Amino acid sequence: MTDSFDAVDVIVAKRDKQELSDTQIDWVIDAYTRGMVADEQMASLAMAILLNGMNRREISRWTAAMIASGERMDFSSLSRPTCDKHSTGGVGDKITLPLAPLVAACGVAVPQLSGRGLGHTGGTLDKLESIPGWSASLPNDAMMRQLDEVGAVICAAGDGLAPADKKLYALRDVTGTVEAISLIASSIMSKKIAEGTGALVLDVKVGSGAFMKDVDSARELARTMVDLGRDAEVETVALLTDMATPLGLTAGNALEVRESVEVLAGGGPPDVVELTLVLAHEMLAAAGRGDVDPADALRDGRAMDVWRRMIAAQGGDPGAPLPFARETHQILAGGSGVLTRLDALQVGIAAWRLGAGRPRKEDTVQAGAGIQMHAKPGAVLRAGDPLLTLHTDTPERFGRAVEALAGAYFIAPEGSRPDLPPLVIDRIS
Amino acid sequence: MTDSFDAVDVIVAKRDKQELSDTQIDWVIDAYTRGMVADEQMASLAMAILLNGMNRREISRWTAAMIASGERMDFSSLSRPTCDKHSTGGVGDKITLPLAPLVAACGVAVPQLSGRGLGHTGGTLDKLESIPGWSASLPNDAMMRQLDEVGAVICAAGDGLAPADKKLYALRDVTGTVEAISLIASSIMSKKIAEGTGALVLDVKVGSGAFMKDVDSARELARTMVDLGRDAEVETVALLTDMATPLGLTAGNALEVRESVEVLAGGGPPDVVELTLVLAHEMLAAAGRGDVDPADALRDGRAMDVWRRMIAAQGGDPGAPLPFARETHQILAGGSGVLTRLDALQVGIAAWRLGAGRPRKEDTVQAGAGIQMHAKPGAVLRAGDPLLTLHTDTPERFGRAVEALAGAYFIAPEGSRPDLPPLVIDRIS
Repeated sequence: MTDSFDAVDVIVAKRDKQELSDTQIDWVIDAYTRGMVADEQMASLAMAILLNGMNRREISRWTAAMIASGERMDFSSLSRPTCDKHSTGGVGDKITLPLAPLVAACGVAVPQLSGRGLGHTGGTLDKLESIPGWSASLPNDAMMRQLDEVGAVICAAGDGLAPADKKLYALRDVTGTVEAISLIASSIMSKKIAEGTGALVLDVKVGSGAFMKDVDSARELARTMVDLGRDAEVETVALLTDMATPLGLTAGNALEVRESVEVLAGGGPPDVVELTLVLAHEMLAAAGRGDVDPADALRDGRAMDVWRRMIAAQGGDPGAPLPFARETHQILAGGSGVLTRLDALQVGIAAWRLGAGRPRKEDTVQAGAGIQMHAKPGAVLRAGDPLLTLHTDTPERFGRAVEALAGAYFIAPEGSRPDLPPLVIDRIS
Repeated sequence: MTDSFDAVDVIVAKRDKQELSDTQIDWVIDAYTRGMVADEQMASLAMAILLNGMNRREISRWTAAMIASGERMDFSSLSRPTCDKHSTGGVGDKITLPLAPLVAACGVAVPQLSGRGLGHTGGTLDKLESIPGWSASLPNDAMMRQLDEVGAVICAAGDGLAPADKKLYALRDVTGTVEAISLIASSIMSKKIAEGTGALVLDVKVGSGAFMKDVDSARELARTMVDLGRDAEVETVALLTDMATPLGLTAGNALEVRESVEVLAGGGPPDVVELTLVLAHEMLAAAGRGDVDPADALRDGRAMDVWRRMIAAQGGDPGAPLPFARETHQILAGGSGVLTRLDALQVGIAAWRLGAGRPRKEDTVQAGAGIQMHAKPGAVLRAGDPLLTLHTDTPERFGRAVEALAGAYFIAPEGSRPDLPPLVIDRIS
């Protein structure tokens, strides 16, 4: 590391559409992490990157520099291969919950470092924390032991992994620079690579409830991340999956855990089951176990066994009843016909307003809050049939949640068909 | 003022190439001045503005909001019209020194708020401070009295004028966002309009030693500033003038004061005399005195009289000897022929390194340091003729100054002609 680069030179280079050199990238990330490059300088650079882009080499180096800012975990001493999954976030996306134990039950260890929700998308840790006793924080040695003994861990990332990303992410959040594909990709991949997984499957969501609203930008993000994985020698595959409609029939914390347990018990909504199996198959294949059929482990209860051991290993009681919200409010179908639309973003915002998400980082979530969906697009309804049930501990929130749902669903004349994309839109490897 | 706008919304709007509304601009400037919008947010917005631009309405409103952040002076009670000049900065640009007293001698008051030098361009206040006793700071009432009695004031801008610009300028300096034409124009014009001048002549420099290196960007800056003046009902004219070669035969503080006094005494280098008269004519015309010939006031000593009274009114002794640097170093012509090039940027950097400018804002300058030029492009030289004399109090600086001058001048075979632009390149009104 050298001090011969001045932050302004790096900013001006990117502002003037030049490529940043490896040395410039290494220096600016390191100096920013150490506080030698000021927040206002990094904000200006982030905006220049958002507007002028980075090429593959620059993004790859940027990612490597963020990884180098902290520790890197290593699971090569485990007796089995490792594979992780990352979703870019959606509404009702509880897939990690059944998926991690399912893949572990098939012989591939899953070291999943997850986050909390911000905005209308839920966070895996928020969901699991609705299980009495379960704790998200786990020291590295306990994580390693649990991976070895149980095969699956879902926990919070420690402060030691990619601290540059942590600092930069918080800055981007307040400076309008979140939406840069190069910065999104390097943020996700720096954490996943530092986490030490041997292979990685990315679930890039597309649609109103997703971060990426259109297929082209989702594909660009997926391609960028797959390239970064390859550059770091982590076998990486990405699926583009639909997020125009919420996943499954629930959006909320305890509500989604309950649905996940149904899937592990062999039931659950068909779209959640399908996506869980598709992703499990991808994870097994990426880890060199493409011959194993994950459907077997779901059917014969092995996945449920791993789930119970995984929850118990982190202090949770897998048999304890999950919390319910104190109040509910039901929305009924106003007419008869076919449900052709149920908007993911609006359902996500309504669940968030009910208390399932947090308005600001420092707020807490309600375990029981959220939305239960009684019908998904394609369903035939009669006037007066239940459509949505809203759950919250704070009934004064019903008003604004109902407001968020205005126009979120549409009931078309009988015989109509919803015009929706397939669940899995594309695969990039 | 309302708090209903969030800084991120304003940043995202400009990032996504939208026009900012009047309310957004008013809010963000006011909130930034009050510290409610953080430096990192304004830096990100400044980069988005630099890359995506602002239209005329946006720049005009941005300028008005910066003026509204502080006090606005008013000279309408004076018995004569007012006109100010602003130069975008160059090497050897001492024109303000003879110009202000010359225009005042012709019946138009000149209220000039000036700055200090940073980088390779000199600052008017630094130059005047080489006069024993002279002080740059002047309370508003003393400024008004001096304008009324002497007709010309050159002093430092008080903290009350456009504080938003002061804060934003310091931020842009460290975040690579200085070079946005909209922000340069609004910065200059907010100060000049708040200063209360009735008319304004802009000297936009073009060439290696100027901020604007090419005629097109200089013309765009000039056009933008003339429009802003018009929007604020300040009669504004801009000249594009050459800064490929230094102005006059000196670059440095006391060195330039000496040359300015020569001009006021009826002598001085022809380019300095020409530009002083051209700008004086423009200022008189802009203030409604286009019939007065400034050359008369230079010839008959009236301009020199005003100079002496102007310096004395601010505590300076116009008769005191000016400081000389302790050491000099001469550079001789290496061959015979015609001088075809003398690069303004390189001479400026060399003078700066000798101590005429300040490396950082908090540093002081040497009154005597700088460069004396013995020939300008077009001059016929013999090998061994003196070309440049370098002046400094700190002779260890000669080395780096000489380095900066490598390739700064070129002596072509006899009969050659320098290929240089005219002194006045264009006029925009």
